Amino acid sequence: MTLDEILEEMKIAKTIVILTHESPDGDAIGSSLALQLVLEKFGKEADVIIPEYSRLFSFLPGTDKIKKESNIKNYDLAISVDNADLKRLAQKEYFENATKTINIDHHGSNNMFADLNYVNPVSPACCETLAGIFEYFQIDITKEIGSCLMAGIITDTGGFRHSGITPETFEFTAELIRKGVNIQDIYKRTLRTKTKANFLLTKKVIDRMEILENGKITFTYITMQDEEEVQAEPGDHEGLVDIGRDIEGVEVSIFIRQNKEKTGYKISMRSGNYVNVSDICFMFGGGGHPRAAGAFIQGNIEQVKEKVLKEVKKSL
Amino acid sequence: MTLDEILEEMKIAKTIVILTHESPDGDAIGSSLALQLVLEKFGKEADVIIPEYSRLFSFLPGTDKIKKESNIKNYDLAISVDNADLKRLAQKEYFENATKTINIDHHGSNNMFADLNYVNPVSPACCETLAGIFEYFQIDITKEIGSCLMAGIITDTGGFRHSGITPETFEFTAELIRKGVNIQDIYKRTLRTKTKANFLLTKKVIDRMEILENGKITFTYITMQDEEEVQAEPGDHEGLVDIGRDIEGVEVSIFIRQNKEKTGYKISMRSGNYVNVSDICFMFGGGGHPRAAGAFIQGNIEQVKEKVLKEVKKSL
Repeated sequence: MTLDEILEEMKIAKTIVILTHESPDGDAIGSSLALQLVLEKFGKEADVIIPEYSRLFSFLPGTDKIKKESNIKNYDLAISVDNADLKRLAQKEYFENATKTINIDHHGSNNMFADLNYVNPVSPACCETLAGIFEYFQIDITKEIGSCLMAGIITDTGGFRHSGITPETFEFTAELIRKGVNIQDIYKRTLRTKTKANFLLTKKVIDRMEILENGKITFTYITMQDEEEVQAEPGDHEGLVDIGRDIEGVEVSIFIRQNKEKTGYKISMRSGNYVNVSDICFMFGGGGHPRAAGAFIQGNIEQVKEKVLKEVKKSL
Repeated sequence: MTLDEILEEMKIAKTIVILTHESPDGDAIGSSLALQLVLEKFGKEADVIIPEYSRLFSFLPGTDKIKKESNIKNYDLAISVDNADLKRLAQKEYFENATKTINIDHHGSNNMFADLNYVNPVSPACCETLAGIFEYFQIDITKEIGSCLMAGIITDTGGFRHSGITPETFEFTAELIRKGVNIQDIYKRTLRTKTKANFLLTKKVIDRMEILENGKITFTYITMQDEEEVQAEPGDHEGLVDIGRDIEGVEVSIFIRQNKEKTGYKISMRSGNYVNVSDICFMFGGGGHPRAAGAFIQGNIEQVKEKVLKEVKKSL
């Protein structure tokens, strides 16, 4: 079985690097840190390389050891977590230069880019996929490992609310509470707490919200100028796309955010019941889940808005 | 044991009424409807009297049978659910005129106002207290009963996030999912969905948000004029108090809302880590939980604001 081979590779590798996708969310960070802690139990000091992430996650055990880059050019083993496509892997050169590669994920759209691939699309979070793997490895999940896993499960399920969440997710959560994992604290820090900058961006996003197509579509945006004005840090735009989606009757919410180079906009989409936003984003070279997806489109705000709205309207 | 006496009273009563607190939330409505369904299993047609509630809850089984008032003046048995104080009970005359009374609740501040009182302050929701009671009664929890209970648990825990939530809550949730209860649907309808009016009030509340005392207190408000302007219905102000609480560094969020008669403001308060807002609200004749409480203060907005802020500042 793949998991036996994965375990074997982890045990023989002398140098290991853990990588995840760009703009890492809680599941990406939680997965990376949980895996690092488990590898420690095998006597391995794995490097976690994440160039930048929201400081809301800095309370998690092991974030002090996260590296932006490494001196090691050729790792024995590179492990990608929570990442569906090699193109989206942050610092992917470490992955490309590694002797052996592993890909652990939960995205249905994962294109199996590693030597060993373990993808469970039924898991609502990569951290839940990892929990299953750790159980198979007969690893005792400590409070620290549990906290990292919980951060991923809570954020990727939007606080136990997205479709795809299973009875096992709730049972695993109960088990972790009994082990001393502070669910409330993790929930609050990762999902509820808004930085001041995020609050100010929320204000802008709400003021600009357009409700279109008889209330079925919402559209809003932020520019680089907005982000500079509120001194936004990485992650400060998190959750803004959900605001439109949560209005009664809305099927698709669209949130677009200018890229740093000001050459175009990152598109984030959420859907309510039936529109497959992953399919729409795929047309623009992006992807994701049926109810939550993203892409990038070059152009100014009017051009990008027109392109996106045209496709979304067709899908209603 | 009290529960045996409660069961006995339910079995001997010919006419039963179920009542709950004013401005009923999901836990109040879910508790009432779940209890009504359970009483049906005993062959009892109990009346649920709730004068007004948010239409977001109208998907719950049994809402079509909710009454605003009743022809029966003297019920054999009146049961109050999720209500800490007789003063706050909606249509309390039915309770006062009943031959026998029962009080089932989870508020620590409950003042035991009935003939038989069963209060479990460890429960994060009255619906969880009821789940325990139903288990003791050896009632099989159907999908319908489970949906009502889940509506209360999800709303009163803010979507599994408030302190006080237990491993049992998560295990019970897992059990209900296996019984076919659609957690995601309930979550979305009761907690995430914002009516258009609620969205427009959110916009006002955010635009007016004052961040005070080095970012430890937030203050915001809505008036009756605002509510008329957006054509607000009952429940459309739900969740507005949480917006301030979720900003990083905020300990107390204050949201005040003018009453219909325009004689004063209803105060809602949330706290983050240490301020007991229930104590503060108690000084103004209100109450609640340590992290979520409310009260009413007469006066215009400046007077009310000054009074509340003075007390909150002392508590920091």
